[in-house]
Amino acid sequence: MRAAFLSTTLPFADWDAALKEHMPELELRPWPGIGDADAIDAALAWQPPAGSLARLPKLRLVHALGAGVEELLADPGLAPGVPVVRLVDPSMTRAMGEYVQLQVLRLHRQDFDYRAQQEAGLWRELPQPAPGERRVGILGLGVLGSEAALRLKVLGFDVAGWSRLERKQKGIPSFFGKDGLAALVRRSDILVCLLPLTRETENILDVGLFAALPRGAAIVNCGRGAHLVEDDLLAALESGQLSAAVLDVARAEPLPPEHGFWSHPRIVLTPHAAAATNPRTAAPIVAAALRRFAAGNRLANLVDRARGY
Amino acid sequence: MRAAFLSTTLPFADWDAALKEHMPELELRPWPGIGDADAIDAALAWQPPAGSLARLPKLRLVHALGAGVEELLADPGLAPGVPVVRLVDPSMTRAMGEYVQLQVLRLHRQDFDYRAQQEAGLWRELPQPAPGERRVGILGLGVLGSEAALRLKVLGFDVAGWSRLERKQKGIPSFFGKDGLAALVRRSDILVCLLPLTRETENILDVGLFAALPRGAAIVNCGRGAHLVEDDLLAALESGQLSAAVLDVARAEPLPPEHGFWSHPRIVLTPHAAAATNPRTAAPIVAAALRRFAAGNRLANLVDRARGY
Repeated sequence: MRAAFLSTTLPFADWDAALKEHMPELELRPWPGIGDADAIDAALAWQPPAGSLARLPKLRLVHALGAGVEELLADPGLAPGVPVVRLVDPSMTRAMGEYVQLQVLRLHRQDFDYRAQQEAGLWRELPQPAPGERRVGILGLGVLGSEAALRLKVLGFDVAGWSRLERKQKGIPSFFGKDGLAALVRRSDILVCLLPLTRETENILDVGLFAALPRGAAIVNCGRGAHLVEDDLLAALESGQLSAAVLDVARAEPLPPEHGFWSHPRIVLTPHAAAATNPRTAAPIVAAALRRFAAGNRLANLVDRARGY
Repeated sequence: MRAAFLSTTLPFADWDAALKEHMPELELRPWPGIGDADAIDAALAWQPPAGSLARLPKLRLVHALGAGVEELLADPGLAPGVPVVRLVDPSMTRAMGEYVQLQVLRLHRQDFDYRAQQEAGLWRELPQPAPGERRVGILGLGVLGSEAALRLKVLGFDVAGWSRLERKQKGIPSFFGKDGLAALVRRSDILVCLLPLTRETENILDVGLFAALPRGAAIVNCGRGAHLVEDDLLAALESGQLSAAVLDVARAEPLPPEHGFWSHPRIVLTPHAAAATNPRTAAPIVAAALRRFAAGNRLANLVDRARGY
């Protein structure tokens, strides 16, 4: 089997070696040196270089090398009928769940306040609510959102979730649709965004949503930078409507040097590091999908291209 | 029943109200206005004011209002035969477990490094080990240490524990004694201190122990300030032998204004806030102990005064 590796940011040699271990018959060709384009029937893609997809006329499958596919779907070179598979790697799911646990615990245990006190030389214990007194809302109840919700529930938080379309998560009160969003936001002391990026979810974290949160709420964005209206966040922190934000993503990555987030005392930034793709854990998953595809079997984690995720 | 309330730092009115709810017959008298000292047969104590215990000749029970009893036992006014009960409150155990989870996750997810990168305006993802690749050592396998160990194990960390005397904890590899301490320390990328403070454990976190940790290890001290030789910690951070420390306790609390810990970039400080005593959750536990005492029944959580905890 021949596949093109369409990414300039992921390490080709690591992916090639890891995939060969699980699929020795795979011939993986890195962009732009893909040779005879007509001989290539699958692509492994992450932020595919402009024009690369359009150059593969016989493409019958694209396997994303990350959880988000919005850039892939927006590529004008992606032919309409080609199936796209998202990467669902339990190691990434675990890493994301762990990241959300860390950040929600940080907010719950008032780490921003204690940090400010340390900087001011102040030794003063703050009243500490129990986790059951913290209402945590999870936007997005896909694989990542469900994992995060269950991990927070185990820690004793009062967790609820929201998804655009109705989706029940066992043991987690779930809201859906537009009215459901308002209801979830109203009850969220800590709001975690784990949504896919689509036309409907872009800019969802904006002044209107912030105003509907309880005063002093905090947000964690480990979805996509474009979920957040960045100036609205700065204004909400300024007014005290929000007390803090933890951001793993930004509209422009890397975040530009002059950006106001870098030095904001109520913002913790991580560089899109919540759940990194790891070739070692992802390779067997990608290899299994390519084998099912080669054998003509049904694929898991297929993207609904109309829905956008 | 008449009891003296021997603390100048805990809020008497809150304790009095909470205890009355569970034990209306209790007559609680706050130091120094305890009235007829001969009529008092129990004391609820936390950092008892100097000379207060010595003034209670008929004392037959002391119930500590916190987990640590080292100050109580060191009080020369505490008569030899008087039983001392530690406070074991599941809410405090939960709070401590939660604190340890937060701080170990912080170290695991390289929060100190990402914070330094944010301050430097640097957007760079760091290689992220899996939790199973982090060896966490817990010093102390009492109620708090066992809870912390199990909570970290659930998160996937490679956890082991140590106690002075042999004590098996189901599912957690456990070391004991002097040789066991060396073995545990050698394998601890993150070392958490949850020991009681005794003559044997004072200064246990010193230059010798730091040198035996793997290079770049980190420590979390939520035991007592006197477990740590503070200058040794500063030297170990300076040399790079230790990469970071999270401290909930200090030798002098509040930490003096000129202390080097306040502004150290690799130290996170919290003001003895890991597991606060809460009269609301502790009162039913203290009331139950006082009732068992009044009825002549066997008491739980009795301190071994020779052992010191």
